[in-house]
Amino acid sequence: MVQIPKEPAPPSPLQRSVPTSADVARLAGVSRATVSYVLNNTSAVRISEPTRRRVHEAAKELGYVPHAAARSLRAGHSRLVLMPTPNVPIGPLYSQFINEIQWALSRLDYTVVQHGGLGLRGDDAARAWAELRPVAVIMPGVGLGPQGVAVLKRSGAKAVVTLTPEPVEGAHALILDHAGVGHSAGRHLVESGRRRIGVVVPEEPGFGVFSQPRLAGVRRAVQGTEATVTELPLAYDEAAAARLARDWRSLGLDAVFAYNDEYAMLVMRALQDEGIGVPGETAVVGADDLMLGRLLRPRLSTVHLELPSGRHLAELVDRVVRDPASVPTTHDVLGARIVHRESS
Amino acid sequence: MVQIPKEPAPPSPLQRSVPTSADVARLAGVSRATVSYVLNNTSAVRISEPTRRRVHEAAKELGYVPHAAARSLRAGHSRLVLMPTPNVPIGPLYSQFINEIQWALSRLDYTVVQHGGLGLRGDDAARAWAELRPVAVIMPGVGLGPQGVAVLKRSGAKAVVTLTPEPVEGAHALILDHAGVGHSAGRHLVESGRRRIGVVVPEEPGFGVFSQPRLAGVRRAVQGTEATVTELPLAYDEAAAARLARDWRSLGLDAVFAYNDEYAMLVMRALQDEGIGVPGETAVVGADDLMLGRLLRPRLSTVHLELPSGRHLAELVDRVVRDPASVPTTHDVLGARIVHRESS
Repeated sequence: MVQIPKEPAPPSPLQRSVPTSADVARLAGVSRATVSYVLNNTSAVRISEPTRRRVHEAAKELGYVPHAAARSLRAGHSRLVLMPTPNVPIGPLYSQFINEIQWALSRLDYTVVQHGGLGLRGDDAARAWAELRPVAVIMPGVGLGPQGVAVLKRSGAKAVVTLTPEPVEGAHALILDHAGVGHSAGRHLVESGRRRIGVVVPEEPGFGVFSQPRLAGVRRAVQGTEATVTELPLAYDEAAAARLARDWRSLGLDAVFAYNDEYAMLVMRALQDEGIGVPGETAVVGADDLMLGRLLRPRLSTVHLELPSGRHLAELVDRVVRDPASVPTTHDVLGARIVHRESS
Repeated sequence: MVQIPKEPAPPSPLQRSVPTSADVARLAGVSRATVSYVLNNTSAVRISEPTRRRVHEAAKELGYVPHAAARSLRAGHSRLVLMPTPNVPIGPLYSQFINEIQWALSRLDYTVVQHGGLGLRGDDAARAWAELRPVAVIMPGVGLGPQGVAVLKRSGAKAVVTLTPEPVEGAHALILDHAGVGHSAGRHLVESGRRRIGVVVPEEPGFGVFSQPRLAGVRRAVQGTEATVTELPLAYDEAAAARLARDWRSLGLDAVFAYNDEYAMLVMRALQDEGIGVPGETAVVGADDLMLGRLLRPRLSTVHLELPSGRHLAELVDRVVRDPASVPTTHDVLGARIVHRESS
């Protein structure tokens, strides 16, 4: 760590105080109201092109930027959409999804900010989010209950949309059908003649809300068949996977649905290192359809997920913001389909 | 997509209007100032425990949440730290780093929000961020120039910290030494006797700021040796990698530094599928030290990166917020060291 002090810069006169809209009005020779109309793009008032130009030039010269919070205090509501970030590591699939939502909402003139829950739970988290006075909250994980939704709404949130396995009272719900992911994998394994199916459940905290419905989906898929399901708790490290592989033959399993592609890669490698043939002796199925799974030999079978489109979600948020009294709706998303490659 | 309308909920009396601190003061039988002192945890004023309790109970009963923006307008500054999100997909390493920073800053009573640049560039992006009136901005990618830093500072940001390969005038800089990453890989390959080194440069937009310094680092490592460096633009898909592998022998290369582990896995698989022995005929080195690289056969050699600790960065931000006139400093980070496994 090397510290290189740089030459001190001369103090800039502009940095001494934050320019206000009054400064812009003075320089442009117009009223503060006109400055506000122009810079907030208000269509209700007609303002001549030269005046507009004068205001923009003055704002630029002074380095004036409107204050989103002050504007929203005046307007009585903000254009801020808050997306709490989930407490589990974000994969490439979800990362792409967040980008899409941000893009789609920004085209509807919203500002999206993401905010970590940081271990705050339930109502405490909701109160922390409410302090930012978002006009809408898109909640991608669990932890928000009916009380939290009420706290947010009382603080001015007009739309609360959850993306969780279960709906939350008072919120519009996009139901992520994780059970359907497990069901696709389970049905595929049963139809391929597998009878003793292990299901990996990550031991890391925060995954239970996704892994338990996936496990339940596999159980549902084997109902009425001779197949059995064995829950396999597993940490995401090589030593744990090697221990599981050493015990594999005594467990008597002939297939594994490994929660997602990353756990599936870990398990498949450990099984191969133990001399267990994939798919001959044991079939391996992941989920998420990452490209890396196609680079393995055998190529990894997986469950492909279809997240809702960012545009669709942005339109839902905008519709509810405009009509906050609308009845909360529930939509099933996360279309799951098996991608059969070589590992099963 | 199934839409299930739910039963309309009866309107709650609490939802009719947003409770204010005046409502809390009335219910608790205290002044608004007392409410403000209690709920903002002001230590300057002594308030009895029973009064505190009464205020907290009244706030809870009414569902009152302080308004961060209103509070910061009164105080003249916010506790909001803005972290623009990079325009490239975020890997597990960086995701962990962001979590650490959020955690460390929240312990210092800051609120961290992430915000997408969304294709806005330079000053436009800085103006969009300035509208949120952050007290500090941590800029993890490039795109912020001296003008943008000035816009942010004029809008009240007391600390601007960049994490980029080059310092930006007016900002405190944590210099991410991407050239050092390439240098580690290049030196390792030269010392292992490789003479014709390919360097993968991702074709996807936004990577150039990282990939070009990495390439330059490899070039620096081969200076004064007989080794040569060939730039290999590559898209992150199997067809592109297969084309590169088909051309491999005519390129006459005996080693490749593949930008990061994900590109390295893609290239190694394509080379193996083409019958090119790794490491016999060609050495492959990635970067990031992802666990997945250890699951390949041969195990992937890689460059391990050391990002700055979240606590260290949070303390830097806090120090600059308290002393905004301090001279911008530059710190070199991203300790890079080769992890020699089997692919090189």
